[in-house]
Amino acid sequence: MQITGEILIGGKAVAGKGEAFTGWNPSTGQALEPTFYGATTEQVDEACAFAAEAFDAFRGTTLEERAKFLEAVAQAILDLGDELIERTMAESGLPRPRIEGERGRTVGQLRLFAQVVRQGLWLSPVLDSALPDRTPLPRPDLRLRKIPIGPVVVFGASNFPLAFSVAGGDTASAFAAGCPVVAKAHPSHPGTSELVGRAIQKAVAASNLPAGVFAMVGGRDNGVGGALASHPAIAAIAFTGSRAGGLALAGIAAKRPVPVPVYAEMSSVNPVFLLPGALQGDVAALAQGFADSATLGTGQFCTQPGLVLGLAGPEFDGFAQVAAEKMCAKTATTMLNKGIHDAYEKGVKTVEAHASVQTVARGQAGSAAWGGVPALFQTKASEILKDRHLSEEVFGPSSILIACENKEEMLAIAASLEGQLTATLHMTAADTELARELVPVLEKKAGRILVNGFPTGVEVSHAMVHGGPFPATSNDHYTSVGATAIDRFLRPVCYQNFPAALLPAELDDANSLGLWRLRDGKVEQR
Amino acid sequence: MQITGEILIGGKAVAGKGEAFTGWNPSTGQALEPTFYGATTEQVDEACAFAAEAFDAFRGTTLEERAKFLEAVAQAILDLGDELIERTMAESGLPRPRIEGERGRTVGQLRLFAQVVRQGLWLSPVLDSALPDRTPLPRPDLRLRKIPIGPVVVFGASNFPLAFSVAGGDTASAFAAGCPVVAKAHPSHPGTSELVGRAIQKAVAASNLPAGVFAMVGGRDNGVGGALASHPAIAAIAFTGSRAGGLALAGIAAKRPVPVPVYAEMSSVNPVFLLPGALQGDVAALAQGFADSATLGTGQFCTQPGLVLGLAGPEFDGFAQVAAEKMCAKTATTMLNKGIHDAYEKGVKTVEAHASVQTVARGQAGSAAWGGVPALFQTKASEILKDRHLSEEVFGPSSILIACENKEEMLAIAASLEGQLTATLHMTAADTELARELVPVLEKKAGRILVNGFPTGVEVSHAMVHGGPFPATSNDHYTSVGATAIDRFLRPVCYQNFPAALLPAELDDANSLGLWRLRDGKVEQR
Repeated sequence: MQITGEILIGGKAVAGKGEAFTGWNPSTGQALEPTFYGATTEQVDEACAFAAEAFDAFRGTTLEERAKFLEAVAQAILDLGDELIERTMAESGLPRPRIEGERGRTVGQLRLFAQVVRQGLWLSPVLDSALPDRTPLPRPDLRLRKIPIGPVVVFGASNFPLAFSVAGGDTASAFAAGCPVVAKAHPSHPGTSELVGRAIQKAVAASNLPAGVFAMVGGRDNGVGGALASHPAIAAIAFTGSRAGGLALAGIAAKRPVPVPVYAEMSSVNPVFLLPGALQGDVAALAQGFADSATLGTGQFCTQPGLVLGLAGPEFDGFAQVAAEKMCAKTATTMLNKGIHDAYEKGVKTVEAHASVQTVARGQAGSAAWGGVPALFQTKASEILKDRHLSEEVFGPSSILIACENKEEMLAIAASLEGQLTATLHMTAADTELARELVPVLEKKAGRILVNGFPTGVEVSHAMVHGGPFPATSNDHYTSVGATAIDRFLRPVCYQNFPAALLPAELDDANSLGLWRLRDGKVEQR
Repeated sequence: MQITGEILIGGKAVAGKGEAFTGWNPSTGQALEPTFYGATTEQVDEACAFAAEAFDAFRGTTLEERAKFLEAVAQAILDLGDELIERTMAESGLPRPRIEGERGRTVGQLRLFAQVVRQGLWLSPVLDSALPDRTPLPRPDLRLRKIPIGPVVVFGASNFPLAFSVAGGDTASAFAAGCPVVAKAHPSHPGTSELVGRAIQKAVAASNLPAGVFAMVGGRDNGVGGALASHPAIAAIAFTGSRAGGLALAGIAAKRPVPVPVYAEMSSVNPVFLLPGALQGDVAALAQGFADSATLGTGQFCTQPGLVLGLAGPEFDGFAQVAAEKMCAKTATTMLNKGIHDAYEKGVKTVEAHASVQTVARGQAGSAAWGGVPALFQTKASEILKDRHLSEEVFGPSSILIACENKEEMLAIAASLEGQLTATLHMTAADTELARELVPVLEKKAGRILVNGFPTGVEVSHAMVHGGPFPATSNDHYTSVGATAIDRFLRPVCYQNFPAALLPAELDDANSLGLWRLRDGKVEQR
């Protein structure tokens, strides 16, 4: 498939009338062909108008039709073949196995949502029978289902050019709900975005859906994103990126005449608590696991473990020493783009310069143009409690070891943390008492709590929560990964005394769709 | 029980240190004894600190303990006996049968939530089994449940001094979720609020719960509400009231260092569409039903039908004539307070003065000091399309009849409406085609769609949706009435590779709580 640098609107590729820009190869620091063109406000309008127009037809598809469409998108992405892998590698600097794995994740995610759509639990059908003889007043017949909210803007993330981008989890779950998507391509991987966007367009056409079900526009600056976020046809905004970016979108959304929800996944340092029992075990394996997780994908994971806490003493010192060796042994790999690389360098320098912080390890510089050199720091818990900035995210392969004087200080740190995507405990049975004190604190801070693992690696499954209290996300009632991500794009509607001729199929008397339903307060056997 | 004018904090009644004020009897225009005292910022702090402190113990209660607590609150309200009824009548101007009915609704709502808590569907447990042999990567054990979000501020509404106030649906659903509540008493019914608040305090103590599970503070101006909404211990804001009030709270919440969700139910004109077939039936009954609904509780229902649309012609004229007679026959009843009365008078005058509007009926003035005289207006659809202000809520017994030239104009009006709590169709089988065109439009505009009924009367049941797109509410993903109102106060947490010793009971292997759970993507039989 040809990459032309066009934008995708109304089932066609059209020339963007906005600013010109290119992708860059972060491994070489060189610009990549071809030239891309951003969208103008008029083109954004057009994309959103198409989406609004397509909404009723799209939400009117049967569950099977919509599931097949999701599967068609997955297949169309696979059909791009190695061209997609190579372009994504070139634009992201990420190695082939990672990109192939990420493609697998992206395709698997679309197929999971096909199953989710078919099963229909997300429709949440509830039926309350009429009670015409009830006194003092009869009860009407009431039936509830969830319906999609409308066109969704999906902002592609830089750090997962496939799985959190144009056809990533946000798009998959919005489509699953029955919402058209207008994707904002991330300027770091415009060619990858175009390939994937064209694959989606192909699947839309092959599925006989209205062209407005999908559009993709790009642009190098924030203008296009702002125009999308404030467009009246848009019903929700999905974003994965920086705290500043997420807050800016939340600000735009709140000022709209009709505010819309913003699902922004923003910032997390993913604290890891090494409890005493765990530090008496295989410290080398623990340190290796930590160093691997902290540097995976050049540390550019939302769930990178940025804080590691333990009780001060010889065991924690021992861990720190091995962890330092492991981090020193790591060589800088390419960061996603120059902006992220420069921000990382600046963030590391700020931590390094902090009076209370010791640098315990720097990795090898290597030869990458925009390489992120791993960094491991150490400080005391009391310093973190004094200066909250130390516990803020430095996006990249940098972590801080924190020695706590006692368990009270460890609990105090846990309680002082901002909201997180994840929190992790390393422990043995001997640590159960302390874990029982920590878990209730961490539940209030994080969307996912792990035992004896590392937070990178976010399973796409039914029980996953990739979300968490602010600033991890802007809305901690939801997840952006996993089956329940669909809930973000749904709202309930109640139908009172509807005649059978008007009732949606999922609420009919016969349960013709064979759904799990709640009837008169009881789960109805299918 | 004595009404002392105190505020309720930490399990005690204490003297408010804020401004003094009294309740008023709107039927007589006279101040009521005793003097009440608002809370200071320090007292708000204290109430919120107690709530934060109580949160873990409260959310740690078993489902049965929490259900029993809700039932104890219901019983304690009943135990207030006639004193509550009389005080509520005096402070609201509402008649005895309405207040007795509303007490029944309040108590029934608490008991419904007790059943909801016991059943535990709201916990949404999801289990994904570990797949240690999966390639290329094993899958960890992942388990999701929902947990309560933290202390909730509940703003009492003026128009339902029991069912949407201190122990109303917001409080019942927050308690059900495991969230402590700090209630902001509405200054229109401070004595009612104190009685109910003391009943809750009694139930908290009798249930051996920490005192911080409930507090109640009041105040005549917005200072106390603002202090509550911006307090760092508060995790969500529940409000029923005016659009201006809801938007002010949303503004405060968005500006917090850590934003919190605002569930504000604000404004709705609840359009009623009279389709041609319905106008060929018993028009007298239809008109009587409309007039009764429009003036119920002096029109002070969130679901008061403020717009009535039909196709222009002799049938609609005939309906208008009978409806006018029915409205003329209605006598003004007392409005809730002077402010609401004055705003109603002003709103009616504005509509009346509109060049395109005819006044087709005013009710009888009667003798109430702050009486709301029913009003029925008529205009053309084209005028509503030209001036959106005509379709904005006038809180009270005022409605506008709208003659549409054709069904296209009717559909255009439907599409142009702001978000609504309800939309209603009156129809026969002959109207099915037109209804099929209207329903998809109305689904996007309203939380509840009724056929052949009137929107006042909001059933408290499993399938109810009392919510809807902005400005009906600030968050249309939720309802404030009915069993699923609990979802507002929950967020998901995922537990990865947790040892059995740390797992919450609802996620244990044995399903010891006997919950409906999703395991490996399938609904698990209990």
